[in-house]
Amino acid sequence: MAFQKPPGTQDFLPGAVEKWQFVERVARDICRRFNFREIRTPIFEMTELYKRGVGETTDIVEKEMYTFTDRGDRSLTLRPEGTAGAVRAYVENKLYGEPDLTKLYYIGPMFRYERQQAGRYRQFHQFGIEALGAVDPSLDAEVIALGYAFYTEVGLKDVRVEINSVGTPAVRAAFRERLLAFLEPKREILCKDCQSRMDRNPLRVLDCKVDQHHFEGAPSILDSLDEECRTHFEALQGHLTGMNIPYVINPRLVRGLDYYTHTAFEYKAEGIGAIDTIGGGGRYNGLVADIGGPDQPGVGLGLGLERTVMLLESQGAQLDNLHQVDVYMVALGEAADREVTRLLHGLRMRGIAAERDYQGRKMKAQMKSADRLQARFTAILGDDELERGEITLKHMATGEQKLVSLEALADAIIGD
Amino acid sequence: MAFQKPPGTQDFLPGAVEKWQFVERVARDICRRFNFREIRTPIFEMTELYKRGVGETTDIVEKEMYTFTDRGDRSLTLRPEGTAGAVRAYVENKLYGEPDLTKLYYIGPMFRYERQQAGRYRQFHQFGIEALGAVDPSLDAEVIALGYAFYTEVGLKDVRVEINSVGTPAVRAAFRERLLAFLEPKREILCKDCQSRMDRNPLRVLDCKVDQHHFEGAPSILDSLDEECRTHFEALQGHLTGMNIPYVINPRLVRGLDYYTHTAFEYKAEGIGAIDTIGGGGRYNGLVADIGGPDQPGVGLGLGLERTVMLLESQGAQLDNLHQVDVYMVALGEAADREVTRLLHGLRMRGIAAERDYQGRKMKAQMKSADRLQARFTAILGDDELERGEITLKHMATGEQKLVSLEALADAIIGD
Repeated sequence: MAFQKPPGTQDFLPGAVEKWQFVERVARDICRRFNFREIRTPIFEMTELYKRGVGETTDIVEKEMYTFTDRGDRSLTLRPEGTAGAVRAYVENKLYGEPDLTKLYYIGPMFRYERQQAGRYRQFHQFGIEALGAVDPSLDAEVIALGYAFYTEVGLKDVRVEINSVGTPAVRAAFRERLLAFLEPKREILCKDCQSRMDRNPLRVLDCKVDQHHFEGAPSILDSLDEECRTHFEALQGHLTGMNIPYVINPRLVRGLDYYTHTAFEYKAEGIGAIDTIGGGGRYNGLVADIGGPDQPGVGLGLGLERTVMLLESQGAQLDNLHQVDVYMVALGEAADREVTRLLHGLRMRGIAAERDYQGRKMKAQMKSADRLQARFTAILGDDELERGEITLKHMATGEQKLVSLEALADAIIGD
Repeated sequence: MAFQKPPGTQDFLPGAVEKWQFVERVARDICRRFNFREIRTPIFEMTELYKRGVGETTDIVEKEMYTFTDRGDRSLTLRPEGTAGAVRAYVENKLYGEPDLTKLYYIGPMFRYERQQAGRYRQFHQFGIEALGAVDPSLDAEVIALGYAFYTEVGLKDVRVEINSVGTPAVRAAFRERLLAFLEPKREILCKDCQSRMDRNPLRVLDCKVDQHHFEGAPSILDSLDEECRTHFEALQGHLTGMNIPYVINPRLVRGLDYYTHTAFEYKAEGIGAIDTIGGGGRYNGLVADIGGPDQPGVGLGLGLERTVMLLESQGAQLDNLHQVDVYMVALGEAADREVTRLLHGLRMRGIAAERDYQGRKMKAQMKSADRLQARFTAILGDDELERGEITLKHMATGEQKLVSLEALADAIIGD
């Protein structure tokens, strides 16, 4: 019997994993430049945290969590998203007590038991950032700019930034009434999803793809903003313009989570046919207090890495040649074989990526391996050469060959 | 109510996480040089895999696994170690069909529900490698050398390599009889652990720390090796000597897992008082077939990263200064403040790590922030300077100050 990976999970194998390494390297380097620092929280948290931090009535908590009881009878849940854990750690470790703002990033697996479909995984991966401790709209702009820089630098084309203000809870409550007054007469002609959203979270109705044609003349939340919200939203736009980040205002944009205040935003890109949301975030001034911390504001984003990698591939981005070795060593003869093990190790200790054959294959097969590994050089050692203390070094691109002494091998490779 | 992380888990926060990043960077770079390529398997696997691949009667499977049933009624287990998943992926993805050897590495979280004690975590982290498809003892030597290079390059001192041959299953069965004949008369004077190990895995009795003084004159597995095992073990030693890897033969070394054949090895280092095993591995020629794959040999290692980081700290390794910014920008005045947001973004897009204040703090508090971030420069912009298109750039180490034009700021920082 052979085993299979659990449904909805993936193996990232050599050849594909390098794309992920590349995307993560870009994310880490951008965070370095923006002074966001990594946080790593546990893969699972107490289940209560997500009920409180994500919301009891969300799809995630109601239907999609991997929840289980451990041997100590605790209810634990594999993290379905990254913000709740990061904010829990911010509170538990009292990071709010430090003199500076807290700017965190995370990269890692998340888990949701979703219906199986193409491009949806039960273990998926997110890159997220959280900036905690300041209300300045320049920080909202910085978060949006960081995500945009990420997409740009990994090589995604035509990424669109959409922004909105979802106001404060008070603003939203007032808008909710106005919106319901507009929607109520149309209830019967709206799709089933919209009907159910009308009862749970009417703001999300306006986001519906099916019913857009029914929403002409719908009230806009931007007309309901109070002075504080308007000022914040205008300052945000000023900063984005100053930073040369192209954006579009989408007054119907609301995120799936209820905790956003003021800024909400999404990144969209042309996928296979349709325009997909590939990431997003917003400001969440009430969340830290909601999960038991002090009243500290925050703003963050979360980007799906599966979508990023898929879109890069579908846009034909050049992500090959991310793995190659400097030198492939070929041994001909028994004494040479032993010596190659020693030489190989010496090269590696000098920082050189070096490989050899371990299966006693013929020279021709070994040269094919060198090609597959895109080796810059092959180094060929026969028993005769070994006796003279020399080795043949062949530059693969030019075909040029020369004899070098064993001691000079590393320098000859590094010097090229 | 404030939430806490689940017992036995850790938050890796800025200030500490950089050590982990450093250790992982070293691991990845060494794997690049040794041509091991990353594999990422799911965080959970079907429970059956571990029963088969780790062993039904091991402590791990009997007592320590995080096993749960998903919404589709499958029994899943959070991975307690890395080899079973990697080998499952090797088989399922038919990597054995590729012309070259398969050399894999992984870095990531593992999960065991262990009794809580200092330095033991329920979510812990391992760096492991697996080389599949060749029996050549030079490959065993390479695996041992890679681990040794890792410890050396992260900066651990006095790491000791211990090696042994645990033979083939047939050799081990014969030795088991000889050993039991020696142990049986002593059964009553041995510790309780040893008595239980005598029934389950007598080879592990010799590893007991308490009973060492009873084992003088015990038979050695090295005397039971057949020709093939002896040849393999001698070749291994020849390669290690050739590569300048210091090692000690410990004929009583057996690893916790039953699947090892021929080579078994451990790394030990002086911890807080005692000599600790910090990692190890061995050859496992039967494992791939055991979990349903073709009869392919393998050899690998697994290193605990918690122990590595703890030992580095207790040995006083210099792991500070792993985070700093290039420039901290200070704005004095409202127009300057807006301009700083724009300038800051431009610097970051040029590859510069740049930070600012977001909380409207006084200049003195901002300069303290710059110190905490070990900023190489501060750049101070007042409304007056802004009008002249200039900014004051201060080199923090020398205290030297100069006015530069806003356009030249990035170059002035990069050029330093």
